[in-house]
Amino acid sequence: MKVKLSATIAALLLASFAVFAQDKTLTGFTTENTSKEFELEKEFDSYLKAENLRDWMKTLTDEPHHVGSPYAKKNAEFMAAKFKEWGYDTEIEEYQVLFPTPAERVLELTAPTKYKAGLSEPALKEDATSSLQKLQLPIYNCFSADGDVTGELVFVNYGIPSDYEELKKMGIDVKGKIVIAKYGGSWRGIKPKVAAENGAIGCIIYSDPKDDGYFRGDVYPKGPFKNEYGAQRGSVLDMPLYPGDPLTPGYGATKDAKRIAMEEAPTLLTIPVLPISYKDAEPLLAAMGGPVIPDSWKGALPITYHAGPGPATVHLKLKFNWDIKPAYNVIAKMKGSEFPDEWIIRGNHHDAWVNGASDPVSGMVAVMEEARAIAELTKTGWKPKRTLIFCGWDAEEPGLLGSTEWVEDHQDELKEKAVVYINSDGNGRGFLYAGGSHTLEKFFGEIARDVIDPQKGISVAKRREAYMQVNGMPYSEFKLSALGSGSDYSPFIQHLGIASLNIGYGGENAGGEYHSIYDSFDHYVRFKDPEFQYGVALCQTGGRTTLRFANADYLPFEFSKLANTVSTYTDEVMKLADQLRESTVKENKMITDGIYEAYADPKKTFIIPEVKDEVPYFNFAPLQNSLEKLQETAATLSTLLDKNKTESKELDKMLYQSERHFTKEAGLPIRPWYKHHLYAPGFYTGYGVKTLPGVREAIEQRDWDLTEDQIKVLAGVLDDFTNHLNKIKASLQSE
Amino acid sequence: MKVKLSATIAALLLASFAVFAQDKTLTGFTTENTSKEFELEKEFDSYLKAENLRDWMKTLTDEPHHVGSPYAKKNAEFMAAKFKEWGYDTEIEEYQVLFPTPAERVLELTAPTKYKAGLSEPALKEDATSSLQKLQLPIYNCFSADGDVTGELVFVNYGIPSDYEELKKMGIDVKGKIVIAKYGGSWRGIKPKVAAENGAIGCIIYSDPKDDGYFRGDVYPKGPFKNEYGAQRGSVLDMPLYPGDPLTPGYGATKDAKRIAMEEAPTLLTIPVLPISYKDAEPLLAAMGGPVIPDSWKGALPITYHAGPGPATVHLKLKFNWDIKPAYNVIAKMKGSEFPDEWIIRGNHHDAWVNGASDPVSGMVAVMEEARAIAELTKTGWKPKRTLIFCGWDAEEPGLLGSTEWVEDHQDELKEKAVVYINSDGNGRGFLYAGGSHTLEKFFGEIARDVIDPQKGISVAKRREAYMQVNGMPYSEFKLSALGSGSDYSPFIQHLGIASLNIGYGGENAGGEYHSIYDSFDHYVRFKDPEFQYGVALCQTGGRTTLRFANADYLPFEFSKLANTVSTYTDEVMKLADQLRESTVKENKMITDGIYEAYADPKKTFIIPEVKDEVPYFNFAPLQNSLEKLQETAATLSTLLDKNKTESKELDKMLYQSERHFTKEAGLPIRPWYKHHLYAPGFYTGYGVKTLPGVREAIEQRDWDLTEDQIKVLAGVLDDFTNHLNKIKASLQSE
Repeated sequence: MKVKLSATIAALLLASFAVFAQDKTLTGFTTENTSKEFELEKEFDSYLKAENLRDWMKTLTDEPHHVGSPYAKKNAEFMAAKFKEWGYDTEIEEYQVLFPTPAERVLELTAPTKYKAGLSEPALKEDATSSLQKLQLPIYNCFSADGDVTGELVFVNYGIPSDYEELKKMGIDVKGKIVIAKYGGSWRGIKPKVAAENGAIGCIIYSDPKDDGYFRGDVYPKGPFKNEYGAQRGSVLDMPLYPGDPLTPGYGATKDAKRIAMEEAPTLLTIPVLPISYKDAEPLLAAMGGPVIPDSWKGALPITYHAGPGPATVHLKLKFNWDIKPAYNVIAKMKGSEFPDEWIIRGNHHDAWVNGASDPVSGMVAVMEEARAIAELTKTGWKPKRTLIFCGWDAEEPGLLGSTEWVEDHQDELKEKAVVYINSDGNGRGFLYAGGSHTLEKFFGEIARDVIDPQKGISVAKRREAYMQVNGMPYSEFKLSALGSGSDYSPFIQHLGIASLNIGYGGENAGGEYHSIYDSFDHYVRFKDPEFQYGVALCQTGGRTTLRFANADYLPFEFSKLANTVSTYTDEVMKLADQLRESTVKENKMITDGIYEAYADPKKTFIIPEVKDEVPYFNFAPLQNSLEKLQETAATLSTLLDKNKTESKELDKMLYQSERHFTKEAGLPIRPWYKHHLYAPGFYTGYGVKTLPGVREAIEQRDWDLTEDQIKVLAGVLDDFTNHLNKIKASLQSE
Repeated sequence: MKVKLSATIAALLLASFAVFAQDKTLTGFTTENTSKEFELEKEFDSYLKAENLRDWMKTLTDEPHHVGSPYAKKNAEFMAAKFKEWGYDTEIEEYQVLFPTPAERVLELTAPTKYKAGLSEPALKEDATSSLQKLQLPIYNCFSADGDVTGELVFVNYGIPSDYEELKKMGIDVKGKIVIAKYGGSWRGIKPKVAAENGAIGCIIYSDPKDDGYFRGDVYPKGPFKNEYGAQRGSVLDMPLYPGDPLTPGYGATKDAKRIAMEEAPTLLTIPVLPISYKDAEPLLAAMGGPVIPDSWKGALPITYHAGPGPATVHLKLKFNWDIKPAYNVIAKMKGSEFPDEWIIRGNHHDAWVNGASDPVSGMVAVMEEARAIAELTKTGWKPKRTLIFCGWDAEEPGLLGSTEWVEDHQDELKEKAVVYINSDGNGRGFLYAGGSHTLEKFFGEIARDVIDPQKGISVAKRREAYMQVNGMPYSEFKLSALGSGSDYSPFIQHLGIASLNIGYGGENAGGEYHSIYDSFDHYVRFKDPEFQYGVALCQTGGRTTLRFANADYLPFEFSKLANTVSTYTDEVMKLADQLRESTVKENKMITDGIYEAYADPKKTFIIPEVKDEVPYFNFAPLQNSLEKLQETAATLSTLLDKNKTESKELDKMLYQSERHFTKEAGLPIRPWYKHHLYAPGFYTGYGVKTLPGVREAIEQRDWDLTEDQIKVLAGVLDDFTNHLNKIKASLQSE
């Protein structure tokens, strides 16, 4: 599924890097063992071969390999055979998951003119696998409802709540209408969800050429961007409620698991939704009337964009086969020599919407090459102290099904043993991005310092720093971004509280192939990472991460950076409350003083918004007090850990169990599956992270009582965490 | 010519308004005479008739009436007859000006594909005058050079100096090439001027649909915006050097005036330039290669925009008839009863590029109706104390020729007698905009308070305030914007130092008709001001301005607002120096630290910019000291003037002569015609104003010695002005 790396998203997601002092003692290692580790990594690097990545990508993308397809199974078996050949204890763990596929798709403009949408992507002679049309999944949104609806169109921009507020000002209501939304601006599943909340009866999502078509650059096959036929498949499961199989919430979708009825599954949409190309969207949009939309909503089609409603009227008919399909997770283990019950988990998904060269195979083949090179290391006698588990997830695309079901199924053992989960997904030429638990920020900064950019010969940290400086982003030292959703780390960190990382390269690999038939081997080797240099860089990055965790004298967690980061998040939510208070006063004054009334053009409809509830002052003191204690404790603990010279299972366990203390069994308001109180995907943004989500979303959604409650809950979470750190301190001081 | 009111320009140009206390004593009037003035204005309003504006617009736009056309003469005669009929002492003052018109126009794409540009706007059945093709001036840029050139195309965005810096980073040079620039972002004449400075051999300017075509709204005739054939005629004379007839710089272009040779005229372009429609631009742009341009440069055509150079190669052949043509200024006077040698001048141009309903007839007919209503007032015995002069300028479009030649021709008398010049140009539905000398800010704020918006029933000041608040502009009290260029006030204020105003309504009258055949009566009454309500509002605004100046006990100049405004401009230029210093240090550091080198994508050309000279600290003290004295003096003078109860020719003269002290005979660096040291059009922006232009442009153009010089020059100008104010003070104290 993969989060696409656009300039704005990059600004939010990407990590920043400081130039580290040439302190050559790695976190978690003695000076002596640091040298040994560097030697080992040098050897590791020497085994990496770009041609393996290329060969495996060619094999894995040779046919479409979506969930339940023959080639998905073949790929799982191919990967499992490789891991076995390299000496890993490998099995394919199978789950049975709901995976609807299209039985009937009709979209037609019925008035004021007629047009029948083509809904198909043609084969191109320049793209070998594009012709395998019989094997391809048609263009659709997975987990759309069945439906047969006819209605006037309303243009809803990105289809997020603020867009509906804007439409309301124009006097436009979507009740009983079919909305047409652009891809972008939020995760796609938010669009039909918010449309349904507002009373729409259907939803169309189209790819505007402004976002990934000709506006961005030359289109496929001339260039990498979306041609007029390209369309974006993708899931619209309500993942911000819970990901994974909709019928087995919170437990593994094993063959015999009890399943809830589809009608009771809260993550299934209530209205039909269909993604279309800009070729299919243009006649619909051109037939619309009503007011011209705001400039910031407009795309790059050569038309005047109108908001509707109508006169364009469309008929949308969708019917799906609601089948249960097998998902094949490939799980390959190498047992730890000293601490076999400490699990270092490294994963990437292998299922795709079609051929999926970039998403996800480019990341998957790097994970395989990491595993192979590590296996090579064992031939010279080296063994990992801790257990390594390499995972190839199936069924990520429909909603993290493979990983979530595995995590739910193995949750007791994982809570006990999982040290860290390291994720990757699509990968390409460009800059390092890295998100994750802030307890790993110091650790990962050392990785970024030690991996060399293949094009520039400087560290990937330095190159990332240059990216930020040139793009005017504030930069002081290496930072990890916080994790939202969009790939398989979500169940690990947000459901179980397992410290996680999500890593990859990108930014010089832009294109419009995402979730289309054109995400192919041919496209990848022309536009994404032609020589697999950044595939190898990902091996070096992921490999170092895995190896340092495997070999460290004690686990390389560090808490003062976490404490400082939580402090900046706290500042943010306090500022958010202040800003919302000020903007509410200002906006209410504009309304009551008649400023909008005085401004409005009498020849256009303008509905003056209603006065909003004023924002009270909140008692942030409990949170501030808890934070103060956390910062003090974390600082002294950092000093103690730096001096630590002993290996101990008990210390390791206290370190990796620390992240569990950010979770509470009750979870977040409305969505108990999300148990982590520092990071969650936004309820109304989808992939985008909301840090301190309980407090932040309560403010954003203007629920003042809930805000006060959640401040206390969060303070309690931080106190628990601080108490746990104090236990680690006590154990170190007693030595 | 008129400055088009786009959202951004509006933000810069438009004035802001405070709610005035209900202080019913007008500046320049006693309380008693204030009441009489209000009565008179009520009577004035009662004479205003929207149908006159409509009828005259119909007449004046019935045929194309560009400079030298039969209908231009007919219009001048029609207006002169009207003024005479109303009792004005009227004459047509004729000048002989250079006015080239097209003899041959060829634009063709010669490689890699073929296309011949149509260069014409078709007649529309919905637009009656669009069919008068034999009478229309073809699409062209007036004062383009003759030329026959063939070269590869380079896309230069808006064609301003910073765009060439960006191209340089992409490794692109325009030497020997033909550039294609978008309309917008600067006055059009800047584009070929900067292109020629950079070595280009030709220039094409096209109207991108993003700026005034389908991106903005429905196109003509369905809506008001530019259809695919529409193109913008317009002058490319180097007006920032000097406006007016290029062959008679600084003196009137009378029949027998000595003329310089065309080759010696510095305001004539050296390369051929042609404006085209987006229909003609698209095949050229689509045939271009080279790097994709930056996002902020891209328009709304359904293509990928490339920078070139080539492979698109064009042949551009232009030949003009370089004729001397008559320009007919209509000058109508009503002699002042008490102070006949104090001239209140009110003007608007009457020439158009084609039929010109909006530009300029919508303003011209309001001026006529003002004059008629004032004439009606005289029937009841009222006489203006001061002389009124109504002017209908010809030949504004090619470069303010009519007004400039008249001003230059009558300069001695004008310097002596001109009190104020009040300009308008195109007008339409919407919000008041007002720019002018800040000595008139207090005065004009009272006008804005007293005119009622015809759609809303509140003052136009309040409505303007609402506009600013809704659009997030800082707002405290009524402000006049500073005057750059783009209409006939320029010679009055900038060449002679006559206090000036430029007024009008707009913002709810957007369209794409500007300088095309579609700026017609039919277009105007559908989209601009269908009931001429804002035409009447302009009459009320211009009429009050004229009448208050005519009737005041003493002339309503006020100097403390001016002093405060100059203080904010001084802060701005000091901040500009600081920001330039900081950004230079930062940018140089990015270069020398290798940040750009580390960032750059090795698969794309990126030329690292050269290190720039550091910005020294300047001695702003002379300016600050002069400003301090000015502010003190202005404040005490304001108090004295408020108490003044006597009428006197001497006081009046000292008041209106004050603005002359902002001019120096030497003028601005490089361009001595521009003599005002507070306001000038930007040398590299064209219409956009540069306040404190000597200092500001010296900093912007990185000329540090000149900056130091100009600070001293400006301090001297302010000292002269303060000395003059002290004389006024002394005269009031001696009474």
